[in-house]
Amino acid sequence: MASSAYVRFLELWAEVADLGQTSSILSWDQETQMPAPGNPARAKLQATLAGLRHEKLTATELGDALERAEGEVPPGSIEAAQLREGRREIERVRRVPRALAKELAEAQTTGHESWRRAREAADFALFRPDLERIFDLKREEARLLAGDQGRPYDALLDGFEPGMTEAQLVPLFATLRERLSPIVRAVRESGVVVDESAAKGRFPREAQLAFGRRVAAAIGFDFTAGRIDLAPHPFCSGLNPNDVRITWRALEHDFRSALFGIMHEAGHGMYEQGLPRQWERTPIGSAVSLGVHESQSRLWENLVGRSRSFWEWCLPVLHEHLPGASGVTLDALWPALNTVKPSLIRVEADPGTYDLHVAVRFELERALFAGDLVVGDLPEAWDARYEELLGLSASSVADGVLQDIHWSFGGFGYFPTYTLGNLIDAQLFVAATAVLGDLDALLRRGEFAPLLAWLRENVHRHGSRWSAGELVERATGKPLAPDDYLAERARLAEEVYGVRA
Amino acid sequence: MASSAYVRFLELWAEVADLGQTSSILSWDQETQMPAPGNPARAKLQATLAGLRHEKLTATELGDALERAEGEVPPGSIEAAQLREGRREIERVRRVPRALAKELAEAQTTGHESWRRAREAADFALFRPDLERIFDLKREEARLLAGDQGRPYDALLDGFEPGMTEAQLVPLFATLRERLSPIVRAVRESGVVVDESAAKGRFPREAQLAFGRRVAAAIGFDFTAGRIDLAPHPFCSGLNPNDVRITWRALEHDFRSALFGIMHEAGHGMYEQGLPRQWERTPIGSAVSLGVHESQSRLWENLVGRSRSFWEWCLPVLHEHLPGASGVTLDALWPALNTVKPSLIRVEADPGTYDLHVAVRFELERALFAGDLVVGDLPEAWDARYEELLGLSASSVADGVLQDIHWSFGGFGYFPTYTLGNLIDAQLFVAATAVLGDLDALLRRGEFAPLLAWLRENVHRHGSRWSAGELVERATGKPLAPDDYLAERARLAEEVYGVRA
Repeated sequence: MASSAYVRFLELWAEVADLGQTSSILSWDQETQMPAPGNPARAKLQATLAGLRHEKLTATELGDALERAEGEVPPGSIEAAQLREGRREIERVRRVPRALAKELAEAQTTGHESWRRAREAADFALFRPDLERIFDLKREEARLLAGDQGRPYDALLDGFEPGMTEAQLVPLFATLRERLSPIVRAVRESGVVVDESAAKGRFPREAQLAFGRRVAAAIGFDFTAGRIDLAPHPFCSGLNPNDVRITWRALEHDFRSALFGIMHEAGHGMYEQGLPRQWERTPIGSAVSLGVHESQSRLWENLVGRSRSFWEWCLPVLHEHLPGASGVTLDALWPALNTVKPSLIRVEADPGTYDLHVAVRFELERALFAGDLVVGDLPEAWDARYEELLGLSASSVADGVLQDIHWSFGGFGYFPTYTLGNLIDAQLFVAATAVLGDLDALLRRGEFAPLLAWLRENVHRHGSRWSAGELVERATGKPLAPDDYLAERARLAEEVYGVRA
Repeated sequence: MASSAYVRFLELWAEVADLGQTSSILSWDQETQMPAPGNPARAKLQATLAGLRHEKLTATELGDALERAEGEVPPGSIEAAQLREGRREIERVRRVPRALAKELAEAQTTGHESWRRAREAADFALFRPDLERIFDLKREEARLLAGDQGRPYDALLDGFEPGMTEAQLVPLFATLRERLSPIVRAVRESGVVVDESAAKGRFPREAQLAFGRRVAAAIGFDFTAGRIDLAPHPFCSGLNPNDVRITWRALEHDFRSALFGIMHEAGHGMYEQGLPRQWERTPIGSAVSLGVHESQSRLWENLVGRSRSFWEWCLPVLHEHLPGASGVTLDALWPALNTVKPSLIRVEADPGTYDLHVAVRFELERALFAGDLVVGDLPEAWDARYEELLGLSASSVADGVLQDIHWSFGGFGYFPTYTLGNLIDAQLFVAATAVLGDLDALLRRGEFAPLLAWLRENVHRHGSRWSAGELVERATGKPLAPDDYLAERARLAEEVYGVRA
C-alpha cells in the first residue's frame, strides 16, 4: 500500500501538472487562435502561471512529502520512479528564483511575438533586443541550474534530454559530420540530379489538408482525441492523452512539405495519445525526453513515410486527394522523397542533410554559451556555418537565423534532440522489424497497427518510467549508437544516387 | 500618491484576475475547440484553477493589504472603488470553503458536457444526476454566501447583479407580466399574422457568417482585437479588451437567428472592448453587472438591429451577402423583425415575448430555492409554466428544459439579468437619443460611431467604478424603471399589429 506521504506528494503534483497543461493550452491558443493584440495580456498570464508553478514546486509541503515518501517506497518500484522524476523537476526549479522564472516566461511570450514580426519583415533587428534579453536570462538560469560543479549548457540540454551533455554530443556530431559529409559529397560528385517534379505542381491547401488528415488517421493518429490547425510553424501540443493538437502549414507547389509535416506531428501526437493514462498528472506520466519524442515523429515521417513500401499503399490515396498529382508513379516519386540536397530551411530539409542543419545550431549554441559569440553576431555566424556545412547562404534572414521558433521561447539546447531522435528512431525501427517480420509487407498493405502497437508497448506506455537511455536499451537490446541510422543513410544514398561513401 | 498597501493589493489582485482570465480561455477552448474526450482532464484543470483563485483571494497577505489600504485611501476615490469591489469579491469567496469551490468547478465542467449530450439525445435523465449535484452544491454555496441574515437566492443574484434581490425582482416581473401579457393577448386577438417569409429561405451558413461579420464590424466590433467562432450556443468571452471572442450559430432557413445572435454578442463584445484599459487586471476593470452587459447586447440587437432606420442601411448589405433574400423589401421585412409571437426557444424568441421566457425561469429558480420544486420535476414544471405564460408546450425536452446552457454551469440567478438588460437598454437609448439628436438619421446612413461613442463614454469606460444603479442614473438622469421599455413594446405592437393594450 502506498504511504500517505506518497499519496500526498501525488496530490500536490497534480496541481503542478495542471498548471503546466494550462500553460500549454494558452500557448496553443496564442499560436493558432488569439488575435495579435492579445499578446501583452497573454504574456502576463503566462508569467503568472509560471510563477504559480514555481511556487507550487518549491512549496515546503511538496518538498516535505517528497522527502518522507523517499524514505518509504521500495527501490526500483513505480513509486520510486515517480519520486525520482519529481525530485529532478523540483531540484531544477528550486535553483531558479521565482522572479527569474516569471521574467523568463514573460520575455519568451513577447519574444515569440517579436520573432514572428521580425521573420515577416525579414529584419533581425526587430527580434534582436528580445533575443538578447532571452539569452541573458537563459544564461543566468543555466548558471543557476548547473551550480558550481555543472556546465551551464549541459543544464539546458538536461531540461530537454535528461542526462545528456555537451561532452557526449560533441563526438556524436563529429561522427555524424564525418560519415554524412562524404555521402553528401559523393552525391554531389556523382552528378546525379533527382527529378523532383513528381512532388511538384499546384495543390490547393484544403486538398493537402484532407490528404494529410487521411494519412495521419491511417497511421494511427486519433482525431476524436485530437485536432489539427493551421499555424506558422508545425508543432504538437499534447495536453493530455485525450486532447492532442497538431498544427500544419503547406507549400502550394510541393505536397511533401505539408504531408511530411503532418506525418511528423502525428508521430509526436501518437506518442502523446499513447502515454500511460493511469499516470496522468504524475511525474512519470509524460514523455521521457525530446529525443525519444522526436524518434516517434521521425520514425513515421522518414522511416515509414519515405519508404517505397509505404508509397505502394499511399500512391492511390495521393491520386484521390490531389488531382494535380494524378500522373505520378512510384518510380518517379520515391527518389524525390529521399534526396540528399543541401538547402536552407531545416524544417523543409531532406533527411539526407538534416543533421547538418542541426549541427549548425548546436555549434552556434555552444559558441554563445562559451562566450565566443554574441547574439548580435548570430546572423553572420549563421550564414558562415551554412556556407561551410551546406555550401549555401540565405538571401534573407527569414530563411536564415530567423527561420526557427526555438530561440524565441528560450529553447537553447533543444536542437540536438532532433538528431538524437534520428538515431533512436533508426534503432527502434530495426528492433521492431526483427519482431514484426516483414514490415515492408505490412506497410504495402497499409497495415500500420502492428508497428504502432510495438511502439505503444515498447515506448509510449512507459512514460518516464525509465530514462531515455534505459528505454532504448530495453526496447532494442543495446545502448544507443549511430550505427543503424548511418547504415540507413548510406543504403538510401546508394539506392537513390548509386553512390557508396 | 498611492499607499504601498494599495499598490501591493493591486499586485496581488492581478494574479487573481489572471487566474480568472485563464479560466475563461479554458472555457472558450472547451466550447469551441477541444475534442470531447478532453473533458475529464479539463474538468480537473478548471477545478485546480478555481482552487488556486480561491487560495489567492483568501490569502492573508491580500486580506491584510486590503485592510491596511482601506484605512489609507480617500473616500469616493477611484482607489476606494477598487477596494470596495475587491472586498466584495473577497467576502464572497471567504464564505465558500475551497473544497466546495473546487467541487463546484468540477461539477460544472462535467455537467456542461452531460447537458450537451442530454440535449443532443433529448433525454433529461442523462443530465439529471449532474444537475442535481450542481443544484445541491449551489444551494449549499448560496446558504454560505447569504449567511444568517441574507436569503440564499439573493446571494446568487448578487453574484451576477450586485445588490439585486428577489424582493426587488418579484414586483418588477409582476409589472412586466401585467403590462406585457395584455399586449400579447391583444396581438393574438387582433387576428393579424405577420408574414415572416421575407426572413426565410435557404441561406448558406458561410454567407450568413460573412453577413454577420460585416454588420458586426460596421456597428463597431473590432475584429482585429476579437474573433468569431461556431459554437452550440452563442456567447461572448471577453478575455481582455484586446482579445474578445464571440460565437455564433445559424438556422439555414431563417437569417434572423444568426444575424441577431451575432449583433447581440457583438454588443457584449463592444462593451468588453471598451472597458478601461488602464484598469486591466484590477477589481474595477471589468463589467459592472450582467444586467448592464445585457443592456449592451440588447441595445444593438433590438433597438438598433430591429429598427426601420437601421434596415434602410442594412438592406443592401443583406442583398449583397444573401442572394436568397434578393427580393426582400423593407416593408416586407421590418414587421417580421418585430413580431409578438409566443414560441418555445428563448434565444430564438422575439423581443415581444422574451421577458415571458425569462419569467418562466425566474419562477422555477425561486421555486427550487424555496424548496417547492425538486430538480427531477423540472421538465414537467417547465412545460406547465410555458403552457401558462406562452400557451405552448415542447414536444421534446431539447426544446424545453434542456434548451439553455446556464444551469449546467450552475448559473442560477443569471436569467433575470436578461430582463434587467431590456429595461436598462431602453432607458439608455432614450437618453442617448436626447443627446445625439436624430439617431434614426444616423442609423439610416450606417453611422453607428456616435452611438457607440456615447456608450463608451457613459457606460463602457467606467468598468465597475460605479454600481449598476449609479451608472444607469448617471447616464440617464433617473433611476432604473421599466417605463421606457414598456413604452417601446407598446409602440411596436401598435405599429406592427395596430393594437393598443
